[in-house]
Amino acid sequence: MNNNTPTRLYLSEEEQPKKWLNLRAFMKNKPAPMLHPGTLQPATAADLDPVFCKECIEQELDETTELISIPNGILEFYRAYRPAPLIRAYFLERALGTPAEIYYKHEGTNTSGSHKLNSAAAQAFYAKQDGLTSLTTETGAGQWGSAMSMACAFYDLDLIVYMVKISAEQKPYRKALMETYGAELILSPSNTTNSGKKILEKNPNTGGSLGCAISEAIEKAVSTPKCRYVLGSVLNHVLLHQSIIGLECKTAFDKYGITPDIIVGSAGGGSNLGGLIAPFMSEKLQGKSNVKVIAVEPASCPSFTRGKFAYDFGDTAQTTPLIKMYTLGSGYIPSSSHAGGLRYHGMNSTLSQLYHDKLIEARAVVQTDIFDAAVQFAKIEGILPAPESAHAIKVAIDEALECKRTGEKKTILFGLTGTGYFDMSAYMQYNSGAMSDYRPTDEELETGFKSLPAT
Amino acid sequence: MNNNTPTRLYLSEEEQPKKWLNLRAFMKNKPAPMLHPGTLQPATAADLDPVFCKECIEQELDETTELISIPNGILEFYRAYRPAPLIRAYFLERALGTPAEIYYKHEGTNTSGSHKLNSAAAQAFYAKQDGLTSLTTETGAGQWGSAMSMACAFYDLDLIVYMVKISAEQKPYRKALMETYGAELILSPSNTTNSGKKILEKNPNTGGSLGCAISEAIEKAVSTPKCRYVLGSVLNHVLLHQSIIGLECKTAFDKYGITPDIIVGSAGGGSNLGGLIAPFMSEKLQGKSNVKVIAVEPASCPSFTRGKFAYDFGDTAQTTPLIKMYTLGSGYIPSSSHAGGLRYHGMNSTLSQLYHDKLIEARAVVQTDIFDAAVQFAKIEGILPAPESAHAIKVAIDEALECKRTGEKKTILFGLTGTGYFDMSAYMQYNSGAMSDYRPTDEELETGFKSLPAT
Repeated sequence: MNNNTPTRLYLSEEEQPKKWLNLRAFMKNKPAPMLHPGTLQPATAADLDPVFCKECIEQELDETTELISIPNGILEFYRAYRPAPLIRAYFLERALGTPAEIYYKHEGTNTSGSHKLNSAAAQAFYAKQDGLTSLTTETGAGQWGSAMSMACAFYDLDLIVYMVKISAEQKPYRKALMETYGAELILSPSNTTNSGKKILEKNPNTGGSLGCAISEAIEKAVSTPKCRYVLGSVLNHVLLHQSIIGLECKTAFDKYGITPDIIVGSAGGGSNLGGLIAPFMSEKLQGKSNVKVIAVEPASCPSFTRGKFAYDFGDTAQTTPLIKMYTLGSGYIPSSSHAGGLRYHGMNSTLSQLYHDKLIEARAVVQTDIFDAAVQFAKIEGILPAPESAHAIKVAIDEALECKRTGEKKTILFGLTGTGYFDMSAYMQYNSGAMSDYRPTDEELETGFKSLPAT
Repeated sequence: MNNNTPTRLYLSEEEQPKKWLNLRAFMKNKPAPMLHPGTLQPATAADLDPVFCKECIEQELDETTELISIPNGILEFYRAYRPAPLIRAYFLERALGTPAEIYYKHEGTNTSGSHKLNSAAAQAFYAKQDGLTSLTTETGAGQWGSAMSMACAFYDLDLIVYMVKISAEQKPYRKALMETYGAELILSPSNTTNSGKKILEKNPNTGGSLGCAISEAIEKAVSTPKCRYVLGSVLNHVLLHQSIIGLECKTAFDKYGITPDIIVGSAGGGSNLGGLIAPFMSEKLQGKSNVKVIAVEPASCPSFTRGKFAYDFGDTAQTTPLIKMYTLGSGYIPSSSHAGGLRYHGMNSTLSQLYHDKLIEARAVVQTDIFDAAVQFAKIEGILPAPESAHAIKVAIDEALECKRTGEKKTILFGLTGTGYFDMSAYMQYNSGAMSDYRPTDEELETGFKSLPAT
């Protein structure tokens, strides 16, 4: 056991990674290509051009370049809040009485409160480089919308955020944060798009959904001059940007002679998990490492553990390209009693392929267990985690306790994706004892699977 | 101009300060002693013993020891979230077009969101060392209550927080945060104390006040076995603990060969300002430095710029020892239209003496100017500041623009005391254009001065 590690493993500015790592370049079994929803042929750059920024499209389609340079204009922004702290969880180890060494990468110290800023900065920079003047996006819980608002303020771009109406009502402070950064917030569904109008005609009192907000944001982007759409997870260029998380961990670990045996990450659309594991998984794919990777998902939205590996749409309105992924079907909607985040129906295609090839394990956890772990962690390590992050905490603790049982001195790394400042209503629900666990029945899952396209 | 400074000036674990600096030890004109409110004689350790922890009392009364070792049990906690980032504001410099170098010390990356945790950790540690099992305190805006809740969870102490009722209603998430850390929240005034009951009898519908919450917390502490009271600002032992802020800055500056010409700090009770300037002011007192120190206070609560230098009570209920300070009178209550924090009527005695001796300057700023600066800073540097912190930002920007006018390449350091995550309602007020500025009339100030005791 290494007890000489500093509590916080720092990197100097010179030591900070200057390139992202493209995990797909190291895979023998590449993820299946994205398909055009009309032709069912692999999507081309031209297909994607009306929607996304040029460099993001190039990165999305690039399966071979191992390392991609981070432009100076992005590195400069990263330096303002990175490296994110990599912390040795001495207090947690002591409290658990485990022989395991536990480390966590804390992505919540920037104002947006999560890792989402890593890709928001990149996408805003590229948009500016393309000569665009505005961007559109959607947000549910608000982490991604906050990150994009910050990035657009920094890179001087207008931003329209379609925020799920019911989320905006439940989280007025998230909305205020984005507006303070200068973003225009439109509650979705809205009258500003045809897709929004259609939904409102059918159901004037709907609280909206992420799927609808995506449709509105894309429609707005393609119908506005010098405007494109940005997405905060699921896509491979987002994972590329997020590889900065894992690269910082790897660089610091190498500096201190540390090799992780187990890496644990929360998995929604996969952007944090994919970024965290990138350099470690690339070594595993090259036979240089035997690291165990565990994806943790909510039992109420179990795309890995109970989903199907199939082509599916990214949005519930079924307008996006088709992605081969583990999915519950774009029509699947987790129970409204689920407060713990990670509500997305599918999973990034790269991670899906790795899971299919048994290079990643997955576990589903119920939300009272997640909040138990969150509060335990907050009291011991001092940081109040986002519910999303607490999925990884829960399983990291489980693994550390397993080490206690077996006496093994394993090294565990987990991703602490963000802070829970804007999730206090979920904590209030937990504190009051009103939080209930929920696992979808097989019948409920079948309803979701029925929404899968026939390809 | 030094353009080779990294954006974030880091200290390794070995370089981190291991001792606090006691600024009073360097002063020829010491602050006047605290007086027992009954006898009007200097307060002794025995007088303070029923209320405070032993080590805190010793530190409060110690005017001669220059450096005081930080116990390992506190250093260990500090290492989990410190050093706080010291950031070169390259983006702000560029946006302002100033030749000045601007640095800020960002104390908001811990979960409590502010510098308050530095003293909370120390006070909780000493309480545990004294064999106490519980602590009491009060909180208004909630930063101090949050910090104490975290510290008591870590050091395994029970905590009762008397939270001003109207604050708790306006900030339900602050309350939830403290409860998540295990603190017992009591809305003040309450039926749990005689002082609370008296106020409720007179005025059953009162929203409470900080003064009343202090009285309740002290009464509860002295009537509970193995329990003491803790305070988050104003007192000299709190400033001692906060000297870690300035010491980290000084150590990093020395490492990079940087000497600040101007230091700017927000000033409420004085804990952040006093901590930030400690090592720099000690050099100034020794004739080794000519640094200009600017305290920034709200125009609505201008204790330095319009207050009197007199003995006054720390609380509005007039139960605490008397402190010689710049004060508006314990009966002064800032306008309810004031959303920008720093509402305390008085100022720490050490800072008051330094101001009296013209070693510190002071400026009062109106709140729309503060929020203008806050939003400008958020968009440029990416960090959403607490309204309190924005006082320092405003004046740092003013000083940088003055450098632009004169062409002087001064080095400016300011204290970014915390983040605005829990202050979004104030930002919403600002965003909507509903925020009004307020300066008390001379007549209103006279009303406050009438509450000053005749000593």
